[in-house]
Amino acid sequence: MTSIAENIPFYAFLDFEEKEKIEKSVQKISFSRSRIVNSDGNCTGFISLLSGQLKVYSLSPEGREITLFRFFPSSLCIFTATCLLKDIDFDVSIVAEEDSQCLLIPASVMDWIRRRNIKVSNYLGSVLSSHLSDLMWLIDQILNKRLDSRVAAYLEEEADLRGETVLRLTHEEIARHLGSRREVISRTLSYMEKEGLVRVRRGEVEIADSLRLGEMAKESVR
Amino acid sequence: MTSIAENIPFYAFLDFEEKEKIEKSVQKISFSRSRIVNSDGNCTGFISLLSGQLKVYSLSPEGREITLFRFFPSSLCIFTATCLLKDIDFDVSIVAEEDSQCLLIPASVMDWIRRRNIKVSNYLGSVLSSHLSDLMWLIDQILNKRLDSRVAAYLEEEADLRGETVLRLTHEEIARHLGSRREVISRTLSYMEKEGLVRVRRGEVEIADSLRLGEMAKESVR
Repeated sequence: MTSIAENIPFYAFLDFEEKEKIEKSVQKISFSRSRIVNSDGNCTGFISLLSGQLKVYSLSPEGREITLFRFFPSSLCIFTATCLLKDIDFDVSIVAEEDSQCLLIPASVMDWIRRRNIKVSNYLGSVLSSHLSDLMWLIDQILNKRLDSRVAAYLEEEADLRGETVLRLTHEEIARHLGSRREVISRTLSYMEKEGLVRVRRGEVEIADSLRLGEMAKESVR
Repeated sequence: MTSIAENIPFYAFLDFEEKEKIEKSVQKISFSRSRIVNSDGNCTGFISLLSGQLKVYSLSPEGREITLFRFFPSSLCIFTATCLLKDIDFDVSIVAEEDSQCLLIPASVMDWIRRRNIKVSNYLGSVLSSHLSDLMWLIDQILNKRLDSRVAAYLEEEADLRGETVLRLTHEEIARHLGSRREVISRTLSYMEKEGLVRVRRGEVEIADSLRLGEMAKESVR
């Protein structure tokens, strides 16, 4: 079962007994596009994504939706086992944004491993910390006039000016232009890349979807 | 040094060698009210609060501030050692909201312990998970018309109606009134209690600061 070894991000940290337990208990599951993977209250296990794309979002009573996290192949989605996470008692829903194939590691197995394997425990800490950082960024976005829109507007303007869709621009230059910091711009561009709006390469930003980039740019003035 | 044993939340998980290392390296530090404890870029260590109150906030380029977390005695503040946290590269600032006494556990010692002690590693995971949940709640607040204001408005109205400041009300009743869930209301009340607006007891909510409660209530209509 090489796919397990290759697709579970912490597999290399496991000892023989743990690997055996994982291989015996893991299930391969598929979700077709737009299917709900998990809504609040379920605690099935951690999901390692083989292909496709998952979105974790929260839905307000008024039906307003906000994307909290996106998961791509070879990342681990922990929000399908919130019973293992202290205090996470929120209504988050998870939907497959593309046809998705996943490995499901049962919550009980995950719990057993993290209590005996310190590398796995520290790995899960780093996953949580990284999500914490994502949410700090998101709060910043929500409160601070949506930097993503400002970046989109800037890229659109530059593309118009230069008559090109591949823009030679460093993150530092964009940051200077928008009165922001390089790290924040890098994070914003990485978000826009995940959304399929741009492709980011060293020293270059290519506009991948000018229509949606234009829509994003418009949001900055509201 | 009993104060160390009593005031470091994970002390009971430590072995002899780890306790010794903590006791040798920990420093007692004080911050007077309004003093900045840490601004971005510093990585001194984890802080265990003995007395007082710390606030972790993020500041926008326009100077807009948002409180992300508050720390009270016997809780552990990890944001003074963001070098130990994967991907936390944000500009968060920490200020003492009251005169505060703290124990500082150096980052290097903390790092050494979490790599060898699985209980500490899991404990830190639970701290991160709990913060993640706090931020999910905060995002919900920001986006969903500020439930705290709606709760404040409801409590104000009830106090006026009843002519009392101690209201016999369960969280379930408030939730029903506002079309929310009990868990969400409990969290909101706990936030309002930390802010000093109310005192929460079983089956009762007492209004502690009606002036500020009134201000919070007004924000719901904007």
